[in-house]
Amino acid sequence: MKHFENQTNNLEATVNRVFMEKAEALKPVLIETKTAPVNLFDVKKDHEGNWYSEKEAPFSALREKVLLQHDTVYLDFGGHQVGYLTLRIAPVGCPADSPVHLRLRFGETLCEIMESPEEYHGWLSESWIQDEQIHVDAIPVAYHLPRRYAFRYCSIEVLNSTAKYQVQIEDVFCTQVTSADMKKVPALNCKDPQLRKIDAVGIHTLRDCMQSVFEDGPKRDRRLWLGDLRLQALANYATFKNYDLVRRCLYLFAGMTGADGRVSACQYVEPEYMLGDNVLYDYSLFFIACLYDYYQETHDDSFVRELWGVAWRQIELSLERLDSRSLVKDSDDWWCFLDWGDGLNKQAGAQAILIYTLRMAKVLAALVGTCEQKKIIVQAIQTTEKAAIDFLWDTNLGLFVSGAERQVSSVSQIWMVLARVMPDDQNRQLCERVLKKETGIPLVTPYMYHYFIEAMLQCHMKTQAVRLIKNYWGGMIRNGADTYWEIYDPQNPEFSPYGSPMVNSYCHAWSCTPTYFIRKYFQDGE
Amino acid sequence: MKHFENQTNNLEATVNRVFMEKAEALKPVLIETKTAPVNLFDVKKDHEGNWYSEKEAPFSALREKVLLQHDTVYLDFGGHQVGYLTLRIAPVGCPADSPVHLRLRFGETLCEIMESPEEYHGWLSESWIQDEQIHVDAIPVAYHLPRRYAFRYCSIEVLNSTAKYQVQIEDVFCTQVTSADMKKVPALNCKDPQLRKIDAVGIHTLRDCMQSVFEDGPKRDRRLWLGDLRLQALANYATFKNYDLVRRCLYLFAGMTGADGRVSACQYVEPEYMLGDNVLYDYSLFFIACLYDYYQETHDDSFVRELWGVAWRQIELSLERLDSRSLVKDSDDWWCFLDWGDGLNKQAGAQAILIYTLRMAKVLAALVGTCEQKKIIVQAIQTTEKAAIDFLWDTNLGLFVSGAERQVSSVSQIWMVLARVMPDDQNRQLCERVLKKETGIPLVTPYMYHYFIEAMLQCHMKTQAVRLIKNYWGGMIRNGADTYWEIYDPQNPEFSPYGSPMVNSYCHAWSCTPTYFIRKYFQDGE
Repeated sequence: MKHFENQTNNLEATVNRVFMEKAEALKPVLIETKTAPVNLFDVKKDHEGNWYSEKEAPFSALREKVLLQHDTVYLDFGGHQVGYLTLRIAPVGCPADSPVHLRLRFGETLCEIMESPEEYHGWLSESWIQDEQIHVDAIPVAYHLPRRYAFRYCSIEVLNSTAKYQVQIEDVFCTQVTSADMKKVPALNCKDPQLRKIDAVGIHTLRDCMQSVFEDGPKRDRRLWLGDLRLQALANYATFKNYDLVRRCLYLFAGMTGADGRVSACQYVEPEYMLGDNVLYDYSLFFIACLYDYYQETHDDSFVRELWGVAWRQIELSLERLDSRSLVKDSDDWWCFLDWGDGLNKQAGAQAILIYTLRMAKVLAALVGTCEQKKIIVQAIQTTEKAAIDFLWDTNLGLFVSGAERQVSSVSQIWMVLARVMPDDQNRQLCERVLKKETGIPLVTPYMYHYFIEAMLQCHMKTQAVRLIKNYWGGMIRNGADTYWEIYDPQNPEFSPYGSPMVNSYCHAWSCTPTYFIRKYFQDGE
Repeated sequence: MKHFENQTNNLEATVNRVFMEKAEALKPVLIETKTAPVNLFDVKKDHEGNWYSEKEAPFSALREKVLLQHDTVYLDFGGHQVGYLTLRIAPVGCPADSPVHLRLRFGETLCEIMESPEEYHGWLSESWIQDEQIHVDAIPVAYHLPRRYAFRYCSIEVLNSTAKYQVQIEDVFCTQVTSADMKKVPALNCKDPQLRKIDAVGIHTLRDCMQSVFEDGPKRDRRLWLGDLRLQALANYATFKNYDLVRRCLYLFAGMTGADGRVSACQYVEPEYMLGDNVLYDYSLFFIACLYDYYQETHDDSFVRELWGVAWRQIELSLERLDSRSLVKDSDDWWCFLDWGDGLNKQAGAQAILIYTLRMAKVLAALVGTCEQKKIIVQAIQTTEKAAIDFLWDTNLGLFVSGAERQVSSVSQIWMVLARVMPDDQNRQLCERVLKKETGIPLVTPYMYHYFIEAMLQCHMKTQAVRLIKNYWGGMIRNGADTYWEIYDPQNPEFSPYGSPMVNSYCHAWSCTPTYFIRKYFQDGE
């Protein structure tokens, strides 16, 4: 172990070189696949102001086109891509006596290539908008754009050439990259065509997020987040079974922590391995969940033994936040994610996630822990459960409340169900009341919908769970998705928590889990 | 010899593979030199609307700067550069949680980095303006821009980052490239400080244009032109003595000609060797001048023997354009460069250049030609000289005229002097009348000023020649040049033949020849 000052982010990091070297050794070789666009299209606006595309011609018509200055072509790749673009550009008429100045835009959705970045006023950086201007010095040439893009649609505009020559784009293709091997996915035993489709879109989503690490979204943030990793790993076990990538990611979290040993909410892998500077109470605890899930899948106790010290440290740190009543302290100066509900109080959810992960830690401790650790865990489960019932359960409401204002939220109920604080019948009632929208602040993200489905399945509510999967994730498909979105509000599909859908991620890891549910619970004969 | 259809430009080319392979074998390894900026500066406008710079801080202050969105830094490299830029970019405060979107502009002059490309309405492509927008996905990083730039000034603007982190540019340097070796330049034996400065600027100009071929201008067109090559080769003999590069360029012109064997006015070397589609009567003839100059310098008659067939073909083709009076036919459908004077008639100049190069061909033919060729050349000199005197000399004016309109121009007089059509005293009078501006359409380009100096030196007008060098090329230096410009009108230093000085070339090969004159004629003791 070596302590050093991380110059980049002024965080003091604890680095475990052994873990970091193992993570590096597990870096995957990406699988490359070339794909061509399917169609050229026109873009129009409907009466509600939404963009829609109309097929203009098959892709093969591109090479017939002679482009003058200010001409634009729109290419539809027919599905979500993550990869690198190559253009074969040639002059028509005469040799090109000047560079060619092109603008290329890439969009997971049409608005990204149609709306002006100048009119973007969201609160994430405009630099996420995939909008390039390039000078190509000499043509004909096969020009490889150096950046990776996440997109289905691409527009190419000739900003400047000269009167002497015109521009022809002889070929375009995307070299897709992923660390997911489609050949490893087991056949799905399910005849329901809707579930088959929902499963396929989930696999596509996961595949496009599986790169050198499990990324949250290949367009944005392109980063390893612990909460996302946990769900991706579950879906991966049901599909690609890329255990190396899970181990690599857990080594990365374990290999570089805060000075106190706290696992960060995210890690940077580019341009170099760096400790993320976000700390989230729930995400740090999900390190335990990830390790537990991995063990359930692989029964690899040597890996658990290796990382147990880091997992145990998360328990210690999380227990430090308990007050004298064994309640997670609520305050304005800490961070716990849970969901993006407006004004959501995090206390009850955090308390529940602590209990939920303590139960997992108990299993791991039984394998590799000390007697003292086992004792502490058992005791902590008891006291935190009791505190949840004594102070967060509102008998009159029959619901959990959170924070000094005794806020009621769907998130609090769901996590308390998952923490199994109440008896089974009570848990089922809680789920039913969430379904009936009687539980205050609603769910916002597919991430939280995942945990709601999980909670319902724990309560043997398979029918309701599959109905919600079909409504919610199926709703994205009905809205045109071929990968699942970061955000989906069925009442408002254009909703963005960032002030503009241009920077929403339309292929987002935490939304991929229907494939996990379908394969684990809904194959024919289950 | 193989004929094939050149798909790119619809020109049928005659390709001599042996010459092309020799050209390729002579491709130079470029010499790289790293240079750092000298200063950070502010830019202001004077009362006449011209940009000027004010030093803000030494370059070392850059790394102290923390750049927010929309901040711009201006870097002065202290002199003209041709090369590749590397930036070392780092985040300040936190890890960069988004790409960094930068705009980089490069200018040989301040207007190129200060004026909006949107307001550019010249008639060369806007794509020549060195204006880049780049997304840097992950920092800290040493980012190498892939394109080559010609510039002294560079501005770097942070278009987008996020509120979370700021941007620091820890280092910037240019990797200059050239095929000219400064160590080869002989010491100059000349005490006149003004001539020493004029010589140095000429060498700098030539160095920056010497790349994989002799380029006309490293910013624009970055291409091998025969008229420029001829002057560059002369200056090169007086300085770098890179004979290989001259031979490479002559092989390129000889290796790919029009179907009829005519040497093109320019050749493309990127992305592959291609026949230029411009044909200029005078430039084709300068192939002979290049070969003659090369022989005068090297006495390498084997090279002359190799390329004599191509040189001879230019004579045959040029003689085909003579009418029954042995005058070069004037018409609207042909091209002869000479100079950029407005409305300049090309007949007399073309006639003179034909005579001028026939005299050189006579020397080469004496070495390697056939009896028949020698006879044709001698005869052609006689008939074309006689035609020039009979039909283009105006006895009343004491000047040469050109075309059906009997146009008087300085260009016609100068070329007729160089062709030695009149006796020596008459030639000297012509030069003196050009100096007194009695000869109609004035000179426009440093290229034509070169030939005027050459004409005066031929007439033993050394005093007048050196005065003009000091006035004309020295005038560019007084206007801030450290490399010579493509265009310089002392009355209007901002003049552009392209509708905007933003696309003028401020380091242009054909303007480099003062170093040739000074070293050949004006060293102390000459």
